Amino acid sequence: MRELLRVTPGAGPVDLAGVDPRSTPGLPSVAGSRPKEWARKQVGLLGAELGRQQEMLYASAKAATGAQAPASAPSQAGAYLAGGRPRRVLLVLQAMDCGGKDGTIKRVAGAMNPLGLHIRSFGPPTEEELRHDFLWRIRRALPPPGYVGIFNRSHYEDVLIGRVESLVDEATWRGRYDAMNAFERELADNSVTLLKVMLHISYAEQGERLAERLTDPTKHWKYNPSDLDTRARWDDYQAAYAEALRRCDTDAAPWFVVPADRKWYRDWAVAQLLRETFDALDLGYPAADFDVERERLRLRSESRRMKVNGG
Amino acid sequence: MRELLRVTPGAGPVDLAGVDPRSTPGLPSVAGSRPKEWARKQVGLLGAELGRQQEMLYASAKAATGAQAPASAPSQAGAYLAGGRPRRVLLVLQAMDCGGKDGTIKRVAGAMNPLGLHIRSFGPPTEEELRHDFLWRIRRALPPPGYVGIFNRSHYEDVLIGRVESLVDEATWRGRYDAMNAFERELADNSVTLLKVMLHISYAEQGERLAERLTDPTKHWKYNPSDLDTRARWDDYQAAYAEALRRCDTDAAPWFVVPADRKWYRDWAVAQLLRETFDALDLGYPAADFDVERERLRLRSESRRMKVNGG
Repeated sequence: MRELLRVTPGAGPVDLAGVDPRSTPGLPSVAGSRPKEWARKQVGLLGAELGRQQEMLYASAKAATGAQAPASAPSQAGAYLAGGRPRRVLLVLQAMDCGGKDGTIKRVAGAMNPLGLHIRSFGPPTEEELRHDFLWRIRRALPPPGYVGIFNRSHYEDVLIGRVESLVDEATWRGRYDAMNAFERELADNSVTLLKVMLHISYAEQGERLAERLTDPTKHWKYNPSDLDTRARWDDYQAAYAEALRRCDTDAAPWFVVPADRKWYRDWAVAQLLRETFDALDLGYPAADFDVERERLRLRSESRRMKVNGG
Repeated sequence: MRELLRVTPGAGPVDLAGVDPRSTPGLPSVAGSRPKEWARKQVGLLGAELGRQQEMLYASAKAATGAQAPASAPSQAGAYLAGGRPRRVLLVLQAMDCGGKDGTIKRVAGAMNPLGLHIRSFGPPTEEELRHDFLWRIRRALPPPGYVGIFNRSHYEDVLIGRVESLVDEATWRGRYDAMNAFERELADNSVTLLKVMLHISYAEQGERLAERLTDPTKHWKYNPSDLDTRARWDDYQAAYAEALRRCDTDAAPWFVVPADRKWYRDWAVAQLLRETFDALDLGYPAADFDVERERLRLRSESRRMKVNGG
């Protein structure tokens, strides 16, 4: 899946128009004639597996920071610690309005254990955030070791809306690609495994989803009149996306484009990408950092004491 | 459920020993002879309903803070805003070790939308936290408007472990009950709906769960030798719980005791308490704060423009 959906590495421009938002790359033939039902079921199964992986990630962080763990313990933990530090995974989701970021989180993250998730949404920067470098608020939102972070929008907005709406001058946004690559390189060197995903929808599909938000009163709250101003600049945004994907697709932090007109494919593809990301980490449960047999004896003796005392 | 599980209000001491941790108060007769299967299924159904409620809560906050919303808009929002501010719900989970806090979060919060959850776990205070008042770190962890917060342990630890292990002198922990009541009163006055739940397990059940953590290598990471030291002071902790529940059960922030030896009952009871908490808020979707018809026309005109331009 990673090979199929990764932005073609190299110097050439990224051709978003060449990716059909209704296509379903990698969908196996076993999906048969009812691919939607198949994919929904797979997301459930993948969710259980992601939950298991997530628990191992969480466990490794807990073991690594536990007060009991001697620094030199010959633990399996070493295998999945980067430079001795427990790993964290960060899924960055970007998309045009109605692209399905919220839906993906609901379906894919919803299948995982909320205790190990660290989800952050980025809206327009606050006054305080504007007083800092554009990466300041991003750094503060990084997942702790052992967690799976999800960014609902991200620093990429600063070369998307920031560029298209001329929120900053051209020299400023042009300088951000390098700053972002350096930042992501730094994250990768510090135990963060990045998975950057653009959910790619078509102009027509966005129109249908916006119309639905205007028709269904339980969806009015998702609509904002400014969405149409953004829609009017569709081509400019697609161009800004294409350049961001080209400039910031690196081996340390690759970009993936998921065709997203079909929600069931989108959810399955993102779950699959996450699964492959986890698999590459080769996680396992940490070995005990205490004497298991001795603790068993202590437990038995403590329970007996209570019984004798009539507890 | 609230009536059945609430700590008896009034001046009398709370009798935790009088609550059977294996009991299943409120379990309806329709649960029949396979109550576990029934309860698991109900938690799934309740989860969907909680997800719907949670979305309305989230929507109300978004509508209330939306830049488009005129301050005087005659919106339904008023019905579920406290003093004009969108509500937030805060579930506080307390339990002895192995009491099932993590499991409850996995099962009950796991059935909800992670996007609207704000989960915080409290471990031993950091050096920075110790330099502040004991409520400082709690305040920083409150859910934003529109979110469902879950505290995995809480400020109550400061009158539980803080008392039993003599981390502070008696005058200090004795003074905390009033401070906590004042704090929770303040929260209630500021749009936070509190649901405080103690998951009540038996000494025997804790012993079995600890033994399992010592037997299953994929559970070793959940075990800490200090758990047995805490277990050795079981009666002291039960007494500390009883006093905390008695002193801090208020109408603004009531305490509930959920028998928790049976995990399926525990999950169902907590989901049910959450559901009743939501129902009492009488949530609804906010009305549009824009002219729906006008936006429909704008959308049609924008989509036509793109078509003409060959987009």
